[in-house]
Amino acid sequence: MVKAYASHQPKGGLTPFDYELPDIKSDEVDIAVKYCGICHSDMDMVNNDWGITEYPIVPGHEVVGVVSQVGCDVQGLEEGQWVGLGWHAYFCNHCHYCNVGDHNLCSEAQGTIVSHHGGFADTVRAQATSVVPIPDGMDYAVIPPLFCAGITVYNPMVQFDIKPTEKVGVVGIGGLGHIALQFLHAWGCEVTAFTTSDDKKQEALKMGAHHTLNTRSETDFEKAAGSFDYILITTNASLDWNAYLNLLAPKGRLHFVGVVPTPLDLSLQPILFKQLSVSSSPVGSPATIKRMLEFAHQHNIKPMVETYPFSEVNQAMDKMASGDVRYRIVLSHEAL
Amino acid sequence: MVKAYASHQPKGGLTPFDYELPDIKSDEVDIAVKYCGICHSDMDMVNNDWGITEYPIVPGHEVVGVVSQVGCDVQGLEEGQWVGLGWHAYFCNHCHYCNVGDHNLCSEAQGTIVSHHGGFADTVRAQATSVVPIPDGMDYAVIPPLFCAGITVYNPMVQFDIKPTEKVGVVGIGGLGHIALQFLHAWGCEVTAFTTSDDKKQEALKMGAHHTLNTRSETDFEKAAGSFDYILITTNASLDWNAYLNLLAPKGRLHFVGVVPTPLDLSLQPILFKQLSVSSSPVGSPATIKRMLEFAHQHNIKPMVETYPFSEVNQAMDKMASGDVRYRIVLSHEAL
Repeated sequence: MVKAYASHQPKGGLTPFDYELPDIKSDEVDIAVKYCGICHSDMDMVNNDWGITEYPIVPGHEVVGVVSQVGCDVQGLEEGQWVGLGWHAYFCNHCHYCNVGDHNLCSEAQGTIVSHHGGFADTVRAQATSVVPIPDGMDYAVIPPLFCAGITVYNPMVQFDIKPTEKVGVVGIGGLGHIALQFLHAWGCEVTAFTTSDDKKQEALKMGAHHTLNTRSETDFEKAAGSFDYILITTNASLDWNAYLNLLAPKGRLHFVGVVPTPLDLSLQPILFKQLSVSSSPVGSPATIKRMLEFAHQHNIKPMVETYPFSEVNQAMDKMASGDVRYRIVLSHEAL
Repeated sequence: MVKAYASHQPKGGLTPFDYELPDIKSDEVDIAVKYCGICHSDMDMVNNDWGITEYPIVPGHEVVGVVSQVGCDVQGLEEGQWVGLGWHAYFCNHCHYCNVGDHNLCSEAQGTIVSHHGGFADTVRAQATSVVPIPDGMDYAVIPPLFCAGITVYNPMVQFDIKPTEKVGVVGIGGLGHIALQFLHAWGCEVTAFTTSDDKKQEALKMGAHHTLNTRSETDFEKAAGSFDYILITTNASLDWNAYLNLLAPKGRLHFVGVVPTPLDLSLQPILFKQLSVSSSPVGSPATIKRMLEFAHQHNIKPMVETYPFSEVNQAMDKMASGDVRYRIVLSHEAL
């Protein structure tokens, strides 16, 4: 019997929910959950904001735990091993995208919390392909956000070949942005944090930004015109994107990882004259998550988290919804 | 004394115009013009559509001719050699973009017809860096459009690493598009021409398209959903770009080379979920033009042109403005 927390309706809060797992399949793994991050998309799914939620829903897709059972055909994972699970729990494993290691682009990929019970539980089940071993010695209690927020900002650095010599900007210093600053700093880039508040400015500098730029300062925007090779948008607000295009150097890239709901409304002229690209991307593949964990371990990159016991999941969700979190919440089954 | 055709005001037509060249500088080359293409941007500049025209303006930036004089420091070019000149006539030659071979992105690059007298003349002067030797044996009379239309559609294939295994679409089968079909076919790609007219459909198939797609057919758009790796937009019309995003496969690219005047109005969701890129680019560097000419020669790629004597330049410009050209006009000083 899996002991979980589930929501039975939008805005209904989470309540204890037990469910039985069927017999494990040959390619599956059970994870005894130790920690699970809370992501904005957990809230979106709980509230059926995307219209795809099946109730009851057990949220949680930033899972860190220990393998508790393996299917008979699983290789490379064994009971007792520390592992993590992110947005995806199953892949088709035979399409072009799976075959070339882009599992996250598989059209049949199954979300961990989409018609599947997630990690706000003592156990979560997933296909072995989606379960990533964690390097020994990582700080298990703080790394859950790497499995969604972290890979979301790390993956485009790999996909679009961001170079250590590039000048990069991070817009939105929150759950995703504060991890992006650390990754881009460790990558060798000259990093600018786009901030509006003075206290976030100081924290951004501590987390790896070399400079800050005040998003409300026209002077800052004028001074920085044409100076960035890569600007990462982690916010889902609708900003004046043409002002951001103006900040890019020739061959620059404006990349979105926040789900901006309104059309982008981009002028073509600056994109043409400077040969710019505008792009976006979703999470990353298990292989990329594995490399990301090694890189994070090597460079001591850690999400900054607030920890709650699972029993206080509703308070934690409310805190997350308030937006007043520095910078991510992790639920824990371990003694605090 | 250079004998040229110039416009003295918007919509004023072109009239004979003589001007004196100063002494040639050490890094300059004079070209005895034999042929010159007419590009839509010649019309834009003649009519001051971009607000940057200085009158009198001598249009013409798809120049093919023979070197008639070289500055004392010029190397690699000699009198009597067949050469071409495109959109750019001068570069700073010391900025980062010039240093890495991206001269076309040099912020101080000087347009051949921007505050400089172009190729509707018997002679045009340019910096040697911008003058590209033409491989022996090319068909000089038809290749002028390669120097602007051609490089505009060829350059993104190089810049964005389009692979022979990709499925590509060309939207707008006109001056640029009909050359793009030939280049992409020779590149090894599976090529679809987006057309609206039946006679263009047949020509598109002859020029290298393997398939055609009717842009007015919802059924065609439904069938082709998710199937293209690269879609090249050569039109400057404002289309439903989100319908084109829907045609792209994961990791696909929507690339613009037409100057679309209205904002692009793109939905982020398909860009994010499929990891798409939207981009644009201007002409190309002299080094890329040189490789393009070699590739075109190797694969017998030729613009389809209508030829007029220079003396009929106004009739030729009117024909171009009518839009009823298959597919490009070349002015000639040679006997027709």
